[in-house]
Amino acid sequence: MDKPLKYAVFGAGSWATAIVKMLSENLDEIGWYMRSIYTKEHLLREQHNPNYLSSVEFNLDQLKLSNDINETAANADVLFFVIPSAFIHGELEKLTVDISDKIIVSAVKGIMPETGLLVGEHFHEFYNVPYENIAVIAGPCHAEEVALERLSYLTISCSDEDKAKTIAKTLSSEYINTKTTDDVIGVEYAVMLKNIYAIAAGIAHGLGYGDNFQSVLMSNSIREMKRFIKKVHKMKRNINNSAYLGDLLVTGYSVFSRNRMFGNMIGKGYTVKSAQMEMSMVAEGYYATKSAYDLNKKNNKKTRMPIINAVYEILYENKNPKKVFKKLTEKLD
Amino acid sequence: MDKPLKYAVFGAGSWATAIVKMLSENLDEIGWYMRSIYTKEHLLREQHNPNYLSSVEFNLDQLKLSNDINETAANADVLFFVIPSAFIHGELEKLTVDISDKIIVSAVKGIMPETGLLVGEHFHEFYNVPYENIAVIAGPCHAEEVALERLSYLTISCSDEDKAKTIAKTLSSEYINTKTTDDVIGVEYAVMLKNIYAIAAGIAHGLGYGDNFQSVLMSNSIREMKRFIKKVHKMKRNINNSAYLGDLLVTGYSVFSRNRMFGNMIGKGYTVKSAQMEMSMVAEGYYATKSAYDLNKKNNKKTRMPIINAVYEILYENKNPKKVFKKLTEKLD
Repeated sequence: MDKPLKYAVFGAGSWATAIVKMLSENLDEIGWYMRSIYTKEHLLREQHNPNYLSSVEFNLDQLKLSNDINETAANADVLFFVIPSAFIHGELEKLTVDISDKIIVSAVKGIMPETGLLVGEHFHEFYNVPYENIAVIAGPCHAEEVALERLSYLTISCSDEDKAKTIAKTLSSEYINTKTTDDVIGVEYAVMLKNIYAIAAGIAHGLGYGDNFQSVLMSNSIREMKRFIKKVHKMKRNINNSAYLGDLLVTGYSVFSRNRMFGNMIGKGYTVKSAQMEMSMVAEGYYATKSAYDLNKKNNKKTRMPIINAVYEILYENKNPKKVFKKLTEKLD
Repeated sequence: MDKPLKYAVFGAGSWATAIVKMLSENLDEIGWYMRSIYTKEHLLREQHNPNYLSSVEFNLDQLKLSNDINETAANADVLFFVIPSAFIHGELEKLTVDISDKIIVSAVKGIMPETGLLVGEHFHEFYNVPYENIAVIAGPCHAEEVALERLSYLTISCSDEDKAKTIAKTLSSEYINTKTTDDVIGVEYAVMLKNIYAIAAGIAHGLGYGDNFQSVLMSNSIREMKRFIKKVHKMKRNINNSAYLGDLLVTGYSVFSRNRMFGNMIGKGYTVKSAQMEMSMVAEGYYATKSAYDLNKKNNKKTRMPIINAVYEILYENKNPKKVFKKLTEKLD
């Protein structure tokens, strides 16, 4: 890598905005693709994202904003995809430029609902991106605290350690500490599963369970996550590292987590549909629940995963949350 | 055990009061020793503890209140000691009856400052209680939520499984789930160490660190706890079980935890002395920090424990919290 790599971010949600902010600490030029013409115009006029982290003021000299995904992709070497799993398939269909020699960094949380593949697998399968060019970024990191420049830690996983380190270095700053790992698949699953456990935490809270139960739920969640990931991708990993346990905790304990909020409404008696309408968006964990459930169903030897199953029964089988959780409490310890 | 065992609780703090409440769900008679004549008189008159969990109304027919530790000890087979580690030594000095054939349940958090021994070791050493008669009770369990009858989980550890099960069953109820383990020493250390990590969480909060950092701190804390306990008592244990990780989380995330509150004041600039005066009591973790530090100092091969060391430097070496934590952040990942 002689020439400095050019970076681009795809998406304009809060996490995408936070990543652009982090990159802007170290780079002179960042490509930024967003679907909405309005968001782009607003950014050009007001120097901040109208919808997310609006307190963050960008220096427009550093940004190459675009509504054309191909233009942004063609001009960059490292592509950060920060689009919810429910929408990324549709966005990628617009892609016509060859990205097989680019480095792809996935900040998508979950499995592509259309293909049942992990995002990395999807890029490999359909865009011929070699696995050593695929990285995943994990927290624990609320975008809102990046906006406030509060110290946060990120884990960059890539099977090619040099690439992981390069990306990590580009994201590092006064308020961002980074580490790297080669457990790409484990991190991808952890990032996806934590949202299911955040929904479970929200349901419990909505049903009136307290802090004592919440801690038991988190303790059981991390053990269940360990079993799940071990089954799909067995390798040596410390599940208590920040990318797994830390990310679970920051999501499961956050009152700002959309997944926890969604679960809380379900626990308080909203139907799935009305909770989704009320939130005017779909929590990532909703899709993750189905993906994880289906994946386990396909396995010959099933993983014991009472929490994911309980959330699945509530979200997809219309079962009574109170009754499902009463039964769940007997399976936890 | 033909005759039903008689139970007694020693102490009148919030956790002692919660344990009496749990026992009163299953027993007709519970001995309850408390130092304060005033507390006893108030309980007899008003049916609730004047200082802690005052919403809990007791049925006086079930309780045998006493200000005489020997009377209460003589009349019971299972003795729950629920007195802060800083005071238990003084209380035990009053004990003249032979307790060598009793079952001792320790709900004391920490090492006896006077002897440097775990509470179980202390009872074994000075009161000739055999190890198979010594049990430890662990959460995750805020006493306040027991008062509200919110579902909580307890772990009872005893090397004699039958005794652990008997005690667990006596504590179980509609709102209390229990499990048992034989890892007495590991649980005793976990219960002690969590308070140090709660102080660390409080200091971080007081210094202005956010939720992202808190989750990294907890992720590092459980790994440090695992290393520490493994060093002092190596056996197969899952550190993510509720008695270890769950208990750490409920304490480290609680805004009600006295240890976290104490740390928060330190982070905000109070001296140790003024924080202690302000709280009109000493947080358990204050002593635990010194005990853990001294214990590690004595070991030939030291455990890497940057968090405990940081708290020690702040509390006992008068170092600047901001600087100590800045350095600590570089050691975490």
